[in-house]
Amino acid sequence: MTFRDHLEDVCRGVDGAVACSLMGVDGIEVDTHLASDAELDLKSLLVEYADVFRSARLAAATHQAGGVVEVSINSDKLVTVARLVSPDYFMVVALTPEGNYGKARYLLRIAAPKVRAEL
Amino acid sequence: MTFRDHLEDVCRGVDGAVACSLMGVDGIEVDTHLASDAELDLKSLLVEYADVFRSARLAAATHQAGGVVEVSINSDKLVTVARLVSPDYFMVVALTPEGNYGKARYLLRIAAPKVRAEL
Repeated sequence: MTFRDHLEDVCRGVDGAVACSLMGVDGIEVDTHLASDAELDLKSLLVEYADVFRSARLAAATHQAGGVVEVSINSDKLVTVARLVSPDYFMVVALTPEGNYGKARYLLRIAAPKVRAEL
Repeated sequence: MTFRDHLEDVCRGVDGAVACSLMGVDGIEVDTHLASDAELDLKSLLVEYADVFRSARLAAATHQAGGVVEVSINSDKLVTVARLVSPDYFMVVALTPEGNYGKARYLLRIAAPKVRAEL
């Protein structure tokens, strides 16, 4: 399976998913699967969320809370769950607020080691 | 009930909770209930996480994703769930990684309007 297959798998498995991406922690997108036409400029938003992920990581490391594994940002229009795949990459799934958040977290956890094995 | 009663209630209701705080989005703590002696400097960490919350809010607003309602940051040693209570304040519960994350989210959702009514 390629990266894209894993991204598609996550999107297919999560009710309300609009996109799944593999991104560098530096904000550079590796690959994205868009499940539907997103109303908003999802890719630009995810680049900014990568910055948020990086800030959380720095804060946790500075205060002895260990490595950041997962960051969720839930807004009025979009829920995102990002999970670290390797020290330099994370997967993120974006879904509607009515989507299945628990399933998104679960599938990311399952997919992360499979994607890591390909990096 | 005072702010502190609500913070205590959330801590009591969540297995693994170590602290619950009411904070300004500007990072200034209003009140904190510590459920147990935290190993790490939790208050300093939460101040930095407030900055993460603010960055997420700015990113979501800039890209038409609406207002940020909840941010979770899960690290190796600590899980935190922050929920907006009013435009200027949020509640945050910190728990061990083995703690009950779902219950933490649920109790914050229930407590938020009660705390908002007192602001």
